Amino acid sequence: MLSIGCVRARFAKHIAILILVDACVSSLGFFFFGYAFGFGDGKDQSPSGAAMGGAPGLTTMDGNPFVGTHFFALHDMTPMLFASWLFQWSFAATACTIVSGAIAERAKFEAYICYSFFMASWVYPVIVHSVWTSTGIFSMSRTTPANLLFNSGAIDFAGSGAVHMVGGLAAASGCYILGPRIGRYNADGTANNMPGHNTSLFILGVMILWFGWYGFNPGSQQMITNGNSMAVSTAAIATTLAAGSGGLSALVTRAIVSKVTTGVMVYDVMVMGNGVLAGLVAITAPCAVVWPWAAIIIGLVAGVIYTFASIVSIMVRLDDPLDAIAVHAWNGIWGVLSVGLFASRELIFNSYGISPQTNDIRPYGCFMGGGGLLLASQVVYALWIIGWVLGNMIPFWLILNALGHFRVPANVETIGLDDSYHGGSAYPGGPEEETDKSLGGQ
Amino acid sequence: MLSIGCVRARFAKHIAILILVDACVSSLGFFFFGYAFGFGDGKDQSPSGAAMGGAPGLTTMDGNPFVGTHFFALHDMTPMLFASWLFQWSFAATACTIVSGAIAERAKFEAYICYSFFMASWVYPVIVHSVWTSTGIFSMSRTTPANLLFNSGAIDFAGSGAVHMVGGLAAASGCYILGPRIGRYNADGTANNMPGHNTSLFILGVMILWFGWYGFNPGSQQMITNGNSMAVSTAAIATTLAAGSGGLSALVTRAIVSKVTTGVMVYDVMVMGNGVLAGLVAITAPCAVVWPWAAIIIGLVAGVIYTFASIVSIMVRLDDPLDAIAVHAWNGIWGVLSVGLFASRELIFNSYGISPQTNDIRPYGCFMGGGGLLLASQVVYALWIIGWVLGNMIPFWLILNALGHFRVPANVETIGLDDSYHGGSAYPGGPEEETDKSLGGQ
Amino acid sequence: MLSIGCVRARFAKHIAILILVDACVSSLGFFFFGYAFGFGDGKDQSPSGAAMGGAPGLTTMDGNPFVGTHFFALHDMTPMLFASWLFQWSFAATACTIVSGAIAERAKFEAYICYSFFMASWVYPVIVHSVWTSTGIFSMSRTTPANLLFNSGAIDFAGSGAVHMVGGLAAASGCYILGPRIGRYNADGTANNMPGHNTSLFILGVMILWFGWYGFNPGSQQMITNGNSMAVSTAAIATTLAAGSGGLSALVTRAIVSKVTTGVMVYDVMVMGNGVLAGLVAITAPCAVVWPWAAIIIGLVAGVIYTFASIVSIMVRLDDPLDAIAVHAWNGIWGVLSVGLFASRELIFNSYGISPQTNDIRPYGCFMGGGGLLLASQVVYALWIIGWVLGNMIPFWLILNALGHFRVPANVETIGLDDSYHGGSAYPGGPEEETDKSLGGQ
Repeated sequence: MLSIGCVRARFAKHIAILILVDACVSSLGFFFFGYAFGFGDGKDQSPSGAAMGGAPGLTTMDGNPFVGTHFFALHDMTPMLFASWLFQWSFAATACTIVSGAIAERAKFEAYICYSFFMASWVYPVIVHSVWTSTGIFSMSRTTPANLLFNSGAIDFAGSGAVHMVGGLAAASGCYILGPRIGRYNADGTANNMPGHNTSLFILGVMILWFGWYGFNPGSQQMITNGNSMAVSTAAIATTLAAGSGGLSALVTRAIVSKVTTGVMVYDVMVMGNGVLAGLVAITAPCAVVWPWAAIIIGLVAGVIYTFASIVSIMVRLDDPLDAIAVHAWNGIWGVLSVGLFASRELIFNSYGISPQTNDIRPYGCFMGGGGLLLASQVVYALWIIGWVLGNMIPFWLILNALGHFRVPANVETIGLDDSYHGGSAYPGGPEEETDKSLGGQ
Repeated sequence: MLSIGCVRARFAKHIAILILVDACVSSLGFFFFGYAFGFGDGKDQSPSGAAMGGAPGLTTMDGNPFVGTHFFALHDMTPMLFASWLFQWSFAATACTIVSGAIAERAKFEAYICYSFFMASWVYPVIVHSVWTSTGIFSMSRTTPANLLFNSGAIDFAGSGAVHMVGGLAAASGCYILGPRIGRYNADGTANNMPGHNTSLFILGVMILWFGWYGFNPGSQQMITNGNSMAVSTAAIATTLAAGSGGLSALVTRAIVSKVTTGVMVYDVMVMGNGVLAGLVAITAPCAVVWPWAAIIIGLVAGVIYTFASIVSIMVRLDDPLDAIAVHAWNGIWGVLSVGLFASRELIFNSYGISPQTNDIRPYGCFMGGGGLLLASQVVYALWIIGWVLGNMIPFWLILNALGHFRVPANVETIGLDDSYHGGSAYPGGPEEETDKSLGGQ
Repeated sequence: MLSIGCVRARFAKHIAILILVDACVSSLGFFFFGYAFGFGDGKDQSPSGAAMGGAPGLTTMDGNPFVGTHFFALHDMTPMLFASWLFQWSFAATACTIVSGAIAERAKFEAYICYSFFMASWVYPVIVHSVWTSTGIFSMSRTTPANLLFNSGAIDFAGSGAVHMVGGLAAASGCYILGPRIGRYNADGTANNMPGHNTSLFILGVMILWFGWYGFNPGSQQMITNGNSMAVSTAAIATTLAAGSGGLSALVTRAIVSKVTTGVMVYDVMVMGNGVLAGLVAITAPCAVVWPWAAIIIGLVAGVIYTFASIVSIMVRLDDPLDAIAVHAWNGIWGVLSVGLFASRELIFNSYGISPQTNDIRPYGCFMGGGGLLLASQVVYALWIIGWVLGNMIPFWLILNALGHFRVPANVETIGLDDSYHGGSAYPGGPEEETDKSLGGQ
């Protein structure tokens, strides 16, 4: 979470404020409600077994496939599980924070507080419950009852879907409803560049994020039952290779695109940085169940997807200065699907064991000869995320908008932006004033 | 320590230099003297038992209640304990570095070197010895002799008192004796704003600090005898919730204050960031012995205390640009006292076991029904820190001042500040010149 | 690696781009070739024994003393060893990235990609193989065959030689062949200052690096056979003390030099920061085998060496804005040699056990009464690195230069630098354009 915080903060500085709000609000929201909806499936724990992760150690399960019903404000929870809360919160805060870039410079401060609470307390936890708990309807480790989706269940190791698709789709819907910044698009549909970013600090942020990702991907080991050091090692190397190949692939793809469209070969390092992030997002779901060569392919494809998704965003007039949608939403989907293509028989067995339903080997990636059942599960899981997130967030943004609490007035937006370059401010105390300080006061 | 370094460096850039001095000087000071005064209680170790922390593994104790007398320059120490030195040094360097913000822009470089050595070698270690060793007079785990203060001893889990009160009070005394920057206060007592800071980088620093705190609070587990993973988990969640609630509470408190005094509702993100830090400082002492709900209350109160303490600083004409005094000194005191109010019977038992004196349960928080003995211990401990730090630092600053080595001459201060915007400098090589570079060269 | 990335990125911002290229290219180069050349000595592993590090767990060894021949693209490698790849890659990327500072602002983007691949795939791995594997010709833990160099082998615990000398010498050769930036040196041999750096961010970077070093030095524990927590502790404390004493020593040395040459006492914090780095580089080789007092001496000497090496760089007209050569090359050599002077009998025994050849205690530092055999090994090892790196890199840079792919045209260099202050650019997409954005867009 912090790592994401870093990259955003450095990239467009005033986003730092939204990140801080995210961290504060999501910690309370996830404490009072989020963890309960996500993981509150049982009410009786054996302290010994429950030491490590979430559900496996619970002795009495009364969960339903949709949502948890215990542990509001961590009530009745053994302190042994508190560390699990912290780890899960870091994922929740990451999902929240993806949106900050896509709606910055024109959304109200209050709107962001509401959004952050809604996301951490309800939207995100329901997705997590469906795939990472032993009662979740799409879970690989479902035991109550033990009927897995397509005899497989969906694999989302560290959250390409649960974290990045959720955040990316929330960003897309919010960004669309909020509309572009004033002056971003011309009447004829062409776009004006609104940079004002510090490229090199962005690159630095990418490096910090890359490093932080090792906490998410290999760190997610603790959430699965049969895992071991082999899964951690596999996840670590896959993460590295997907990041590297994603960056190079995006760099080359963009150079070719610009050669074709403008005749000049351009090496755009911003694109390279986002390509690294795209590779990281895509490998998040499959990192523990694919071989290194597959991680390189997934990264290469992620870089290409990012480049074209970014062009699509401009074509549909989404004003997403950080390309959060192209990075997180599109490559989140690619990451979830790539599991169905490349997951290896041995690595799935290593992490998840045999299927409790058939007492046989589980389905694996269709390019690896494992049939289509795993891919089918991943597709259903991806559709479920799209439906749930858009189904919740679109009404949420529309209501906020209808009540007049979403977008700042046009004159404030204009003055705020003008003032950015003149060192004063007409808008007391909100993000705009802070932007002024950070630009003017430097 | 590094994290603290980060936040300060980003907030007011030239402070980075003082931080570097802190790190270098304190490492040598704590090596030659500090560790010995703080932890040098025995001279014979069984390597097996001494593997983890400090005092418990020593087989022959000849310590006195005031100060350690062995291990100068780590002489006679088994290499097994070297890791303990590193961990303790990170706390010592943190305590040192709190002062840097409060006296910057007008103190001499040489003065800061002297201060840093004095702090790391003597002032800080004596406090630490009194509360974190088995011979210390206020220690919970006192065994030689085993008579605890009020049959309880004071709890300062990760240093609200030993680190933050010490640093904050040293900052307060130094800042007062040094006087405000030229032009900071008018003759009629009103204050001029002297911002020049980069708000967003400050926020980023807060996030890095928040993250780093998990190394201090849950990491302090290794210093107590009976602790286990339950204490680590409790500390981690308490740290998170206190930070979040501290930030929100400071934001709201300040908005109400500004509404009352000026009629305009202002959301000040700087205040929010410092509120997060205030919550972190306050939870540092009680983190392992309070339930999550109590951590939220402690954080909420910390945010309020910070907001008003910051106003008090201006009223008494302290020129403390980073609000180090309001954050560290005031909330350090609050953190120490909060233990006496909210410490839970179960969690104290988990971390410290029964009392060796009475073979019965130890006193716990008075709001939890545990009587006043623990609170009384905490009050005595807080008074001891105030007396010791001010009793050492006030003479130290005064002597430095009398010898003319504390404050730069007024013309240098003025020229230095002017030059900041003109890219030159009349003051060769000290902090002022570096400030010029960082502002002019950007 | 990331830490190095940080310091460089902050210091001269456009270097961030080269760092990102380094990370991406080196991850693929080290995956396909580098790890194999460095560590590919066996082809049959027992998964149990191989869990931790590299060679010790291999059951069938068919390595040669020069280079590994297996595991290209990690083929045939057990996933258990994947974590070892990641750790080794972080060292390889560090070695690569040292060069970025020395050739920035005038080298072509394509040249840097080629260099990065060549370094990570071939130059660096061969050195590593020679000293860190059980077949390497200079290795302490050589077992196949078990004839050690001078009955000792060279000690390079965490890479003063393998990482820092390699990177520093590659930087020196590249910097020399590339020539100084236009305008850096006058016809009469005097140098013009070309700062434009942000001093305080540099200091911050030093602090981050200092912190990151604990991952390299104590973390290297996993690479040796008989090590234990004692070696980790020793390495951690030595790292701290060498950094602190290196910083203070460089500060004082420079002050004296400037007093002698100009008559004014100057405290240069840039020098202090680089002195910290110099101390860290020097302690990297001996950190686990020297006592704390020796670490202080090594750091003090490192600060002096850095100060004079930096003056030498200017005298021979090397244009090395980050002083990478003075920090990494010179102090890398000092670090390697210092092992032969100060290595302690007990600590060598603790980390490496007895010699398999003589069944007796191994040679140790000559100042410690251990004779000259270890020092002789270190000298031979240092000469081998110098010969190998210069023998590979000088032809590489010359060929690149002859093909016209090394240096950007003079007009682009001039326009690029001018444009930095005017917000436009004539050079599409390369490092220069990015520099413009980062300066003009701020």
